Amino acid sequence: MLADTTTVGGTSDLNELIRGTRLPHAADPAAVRRHLDSLTKPPGSLGYLEELALRLALIHGDPTPPLQRRAIFVLAGDHGVTRQGVSAYPREVTAEMCRNYVAGGAAVCAIARSVGAEVVVVDLGVDADLLDLPGLEHRKVRRGTRDLAEEPALMPDEVSQAIAAGAAVVAERHPLPQLIGLGEMGIGNTTSASAITSALTGAAPKAVVGRGTGVGMDGILRKRAMVERGVVRLGGSQDPLRILAEVGGLEIAGLVGVVLAGARAGRAMVTDGFIATAAALLAVRICPAALPYLFASHCSAEPGHRLLLDALGLRPIYQLDMRLGEGTGAALAFPVLDAAAAFLREMATFESAGVSGPTGAA
Amino acid sequence: MLADTTTVGGTSDLNELIRGTRLPHAADPAAVRRHLDSLTKPPGSLGYLEELALRLALIHGDPTPPLQRRAIFVLAGDHGVTRQGVSAYPREVTAEMCRNYVAGGAAVCAIARSVGAEVVVVDLGVDADLLDLPGLEHRKVRRGTRDLAEEPALMPDEVSQAIAAGAAVVAERHPLPQLIGLGEMGIGNTTSASAITSALTGAAPKAVVGRGTGVGMDGILRKRAMVERGVVRLGGSQDPLRILAEVGGLEIAGLVGVVLAGARAGRAMVTDGFIATAAALLAVRICPAALPYLFASHCSAEPGHRLLLDALGLRPIYQLDMRLGEGTGAALAFPVLDAAAAFLREMATFESAGVSGPTGAA
Repeated sequence: MLADTTTVGGTSDLNELIRGTRLPHAADPAAVRRHLDSLTKPPGSLGYLEELALRLALIHGDPTPPLQRRAIFVLAGDHGVTRQGVSAYPREVTAEMCRNYVAGGAAVCAIARSVGAEVVVVDLGVDADLLDLPGLEHRKVRRGTRDLAEEPALMPDEVSQAIAAGAAVVAERHPLPQLIGLGEMGIGNTTSASAITSALTGAAPKAVVGRGTGVGMDGILRKRAMVERGVVRLGGSQDPLRILAEVGGLEIAGLVGVVLAGARAGRAMVTDGFIATAAALLAVRICPAALPYLFASHCSAEPGHRLLLDALGLRPIYQLDMRLGEGTGAALAFPVLDAAAAFLREMATFESAGVSGPTGAA
Repeated sequence: MLADTTTVGGTSDLNELIRGTRLPHAADPAAVRRHLDSLTKPPGSLGYLEELALRLALIHGDPTPPLQRRAIFVLAGDHGVTRQGVSAYPREVTAEMCRNYVAGGAAVCAIARSVGAEVVVVDLGVDADLLDLPGLEHRKVRRGTRDLAEEPALMPDEVSQAIAAGAAVVAERHPLPQLIGLGEMGIGNTTSASAITSALTGAAPKAVVGRGTGVGMDGILRKRAMVERGVVRLGGSQDPLRILAEVGGLEIAGLVGVVLAGARAGRAMVTDGFIATAAALLAVRICPAALPYLFASHCSAEPGHRLLLDALGLRPIYQLDMRLGEGTGAALAFPVLDAAAAFLREMATFESAGVSGPTGAA
């Protein structure tokens, strides 16, 4: 299915990356469940936190150590479709925000600091020369995509390069973060993510397209028309690489690489908003074994986001009407994962604490 | 309405506490809204986080400083109604869990540590002699309530003493925490909270009573019958002090005091599960000016919890099917409040970062 010549991280091809990915097995699920039910609380009373704890234990072991090395990867790229008036913001904002990220002034920077995470900013395809920008990782594949409404956004080799670049960002990082957040920036990229979502889930564009960063009803109708023009060229294909080529984005393909490399390295990863979640579903379609490493941070106000989460079978931790992206939602999920790992690691058992169990009478 | 002789914190009476509570005004709401919209993000794109940031700014100022001094107050008390078989756990567990809290082995201890919060454990009415227990605050009013199914759970002066004791726990703490979580422990206290919720909201007991820590259908029917017997004695009265006397709990009355003293001191406070939220609504009915200091952490699986949150008009941050109490949900909300304060405090503005605003075209 995938081209053997695709290079990822400079050394291994994409198929190699996929073949090397194993399901997490750092703990025995039945043993973790017994441990969970031995702790001084009614069984199941921590609700979804218990499932998060179990999943972390499968990845990192039981007890799960404190996951102190944590990073949000913010991948940036521009989109040719912006010339169709699909965004409330001018295209230049992608580059301007990259400067804001490395200066520490963006929302993700503030929230990442508050949860003890580093922000790694990567230029996958910004339509500006950012070589002068210190603190930015330079992995530019090309200056923005082509207009997905008119032609394929990317050539197949550009998709491969972007996936490889994203994978390399993770694989070449020393030490590798224990907890990875997926973030993105790209004016116009909710249009691309909407087309990807429609293609992957079969949902009609009008069920997927939302306001993005804030277009009005005219903008939504324009977005929907552009999405339809991109999706129709796919002729129903659900091939993730072909979808990326027709309607994708460089930062989205890069995030696919981040997820593949993160899964290969056995790291817990957290989705963010609509766009990052579209990348996560593409990655899982390429490599199903990546799924158990993914946690869903939130469900945004974008209508397509819920479709993606359902397709992944992931339950979001939050529903706060956030619709910013950048990794802001992913960062916010880190303390919840911390809490899940902490209770599993640190709680006393009924036996060790001398606490009585249920009477069985009631 | 309230007896003038009620002493709170040893020095001031309850009416004095209420009269001394002011609406938060550490920032001008219109100025905070302008500041929010000047930050480098589409307006409103951080969703509910923006409302949390605004509310924190009203309490603590804009910029809101890092709220590093934080505590979860876990108030404990026993319930006479446990003899009716309304709980899955024996009454002794209340005392056993107090030992577990001070030893640091309970869920709230682990989660509080993970969010940098202290756990303050207070005996308001445990049916055991805990004077030997170091690390516990001793504020016992009596050893458990009477059986609310048969007679008033508390005498009016016991209610006043418990409120005063809870208020004193906060007022006498130096330095006073900047962020306060409400927690509780008391086998049988979902029965009391169900009766309080029915009385305060007018909802029928069958719409309120849930599984608590895990009773089966027989237990639910028994709980419902006990709640009905307690509520009927109130004859429709919505007087919060009378409700506390007929069907309340010592730890619940104590939490009412915590909320009143916290509001008086101008502190942000976070609700926890069903029982703590019942206390919060009682406190707001006594002192409406306390409401702006309250944040809702989560909505639990207990059916009455939603009714209470709706009556308070508070939107919960989480819905994770948690049903443990202890302050576990409150602790989990602290990092979200941190993130809200952090983005408002630290983000660059469009002007300072040189980022273009919306085109207005789309």
